[in-house]
Amino acid sequence: MTPAPDSLQQLAQRLQQFADARDWGPFHSPKNLASALIVEAGELLEHFQWMTEAQSRELAPEQKQAVAHEMADVLLYLVQLSTVLDVDLVAAAQDKMRLNAQKYPEPGPSGSAAN
Amino acid sequence: MTPAPDSLQQLAQRLQQFADARDWGPFHSPKNLASALIVEAGELLEHFQWMTEAQSRELAPEQKQAVAHEMADVLLYLVQLSTVLDVDLVAAAQDKMRLNAQKYPEPGPSGSAAN
Amino acid sequence: MTPAPDSLQQLAQRLQQFADARDWGPFHSPKNLASALIVEAGELLEHFQWMTEAQSRELAPEQKQAVAHEMADVLLYLVQLSTVLDVDLVAAAQDKMRLNAQKYPEPGPSGSAAN
Amino acid sequence: MTPAPDSLQQLAQRLQQFADARDWGPFHSPKNLASALIVEAGELLEHFQWMTEAQSRELAPEQKQAVAHEMADVLLYLVQLSTVLDVDLVAAAQDKMRLNAQKYPEPGPSGSAAN
Repeated sequence: MTPAPDSLQQLAQRLQQFADARDWGPFHSPKNLASALIVEAGELLEHFQWMTEAQSRELAPEQKQAVAHEMADVLLYLVQLSTVLDVDLVAAAQDKMRLNAQKYPEPGPSGSAAN
Repeated sequence: MTPAPDSLQQLAQRLQQFADARDWGPFHSPKNLASALIVEAGELLEHFQWMTEAQSRELAPEQKQAVAHEMADVLLYLVQLSTVLDVDLVAAAQDKMRLNAQKYPEPGPSGSAAN
Repeated sequence: MTPAPDSLQQLAQRLQQFADARDWGPFHSPKNLASALIVEAGELLEHFQWMTEAQSRELAPEQKQAVAHEMADVLLYLVQLSTVLDVDLVAAAQDKMRLNAQKYPEPGPSGSAAN
Repeated sequence: MTPAPDSLQQLAQRLQQFADARDWGPFHSPKNLASALIVEAGELLEHFQWMTEAQSRELAPEQKQAVAHEMADVLLYLVQLSTVLDVDLVAAAQDKMRLNAQKYPEPGPSGSAAN
């Protein structure tokens, strides 16, 4: 039995097949995919723009479903961008988390001399 | 032998610990995370804004590294948003791909009567 | 005495001269200018992303100055886009306000039977 | 005869009246208006995302009309943001143009010793 494949890699493969079957390759330049990604990020933010922060934490089920689909759109373009640029998304994320850990060191226990 | 854990789930857990250790929870409302995500999507697009599409397909190594880090930033906020909203990102992406397959049917073989 | 020239038209003319003197015309396609505009809109939003709404209403002077410059960047790209597309921005805005007045009718006086 | 009022100031006044008549003031925090602005900037970019740059320079009339309305939406939120923050948009734009002139000096005549 083969181990479960990485879910982002699976998504990447299926998206590649989907785009190839529709001859979308010429449209999927990194420039265009980065544009499409931010357009979807705008559609995601639109759901929250007039909400208070508290309201955004308590979405009704149908709102949450719509938001989940916008999040999916962002992910799908991000994965396609990683394919055309040959970027390992998870490795890049882990790399960035290491940088963030240096940039924002964990605070010591409050009241501690170390902090 | 346990299967390889899902890489997005791992990221989600580590990001949660990272934010908790810094008491960032109150700032991480869905509204704010969706704002932070689009800000990072803008930093990603900035790399491409004056490039031709052809140039965007042929990034120099240091440009590709910088772009990979912006992509990581988008992913990290997307994963954190999925945590606070309790959305299964991969399931949402698979759901969206099913909808896309209906919306953009695969063209038949060229020259085929079916198309 | 000549009437005060329209300030947006003045900005448009000066931006055109500025871009021409630097041979930026080939880069200033509508597609690229719309990308540059949203990148600046992201830099504008970045100032507010972790603020509460109340904090965003009470910016310190140096924050307000930085925000004003990001707003200016958005306006400068919007004006340049209007030039390359030959769109009359103020006329478009007035047109849109008429549409908004139909879409969001003014509520009647509270307590009135008409509302 | 009074001089023609500045068109942005006119827009600002009419938008203020429009928002006041609908009691939208509490929603119109700078944070929210900056979000709404970038959402509209995304709708603007959406028109261009799969176009080539050349295509974006040759919009069909109905496309140009739709694009003009998205540009108007960006301007309307920018003007409303300038009102709530008490920022003089045109002065900020002129200020930014002075900074840009320092940052990107005009090139001398080609072949000139000065350059």
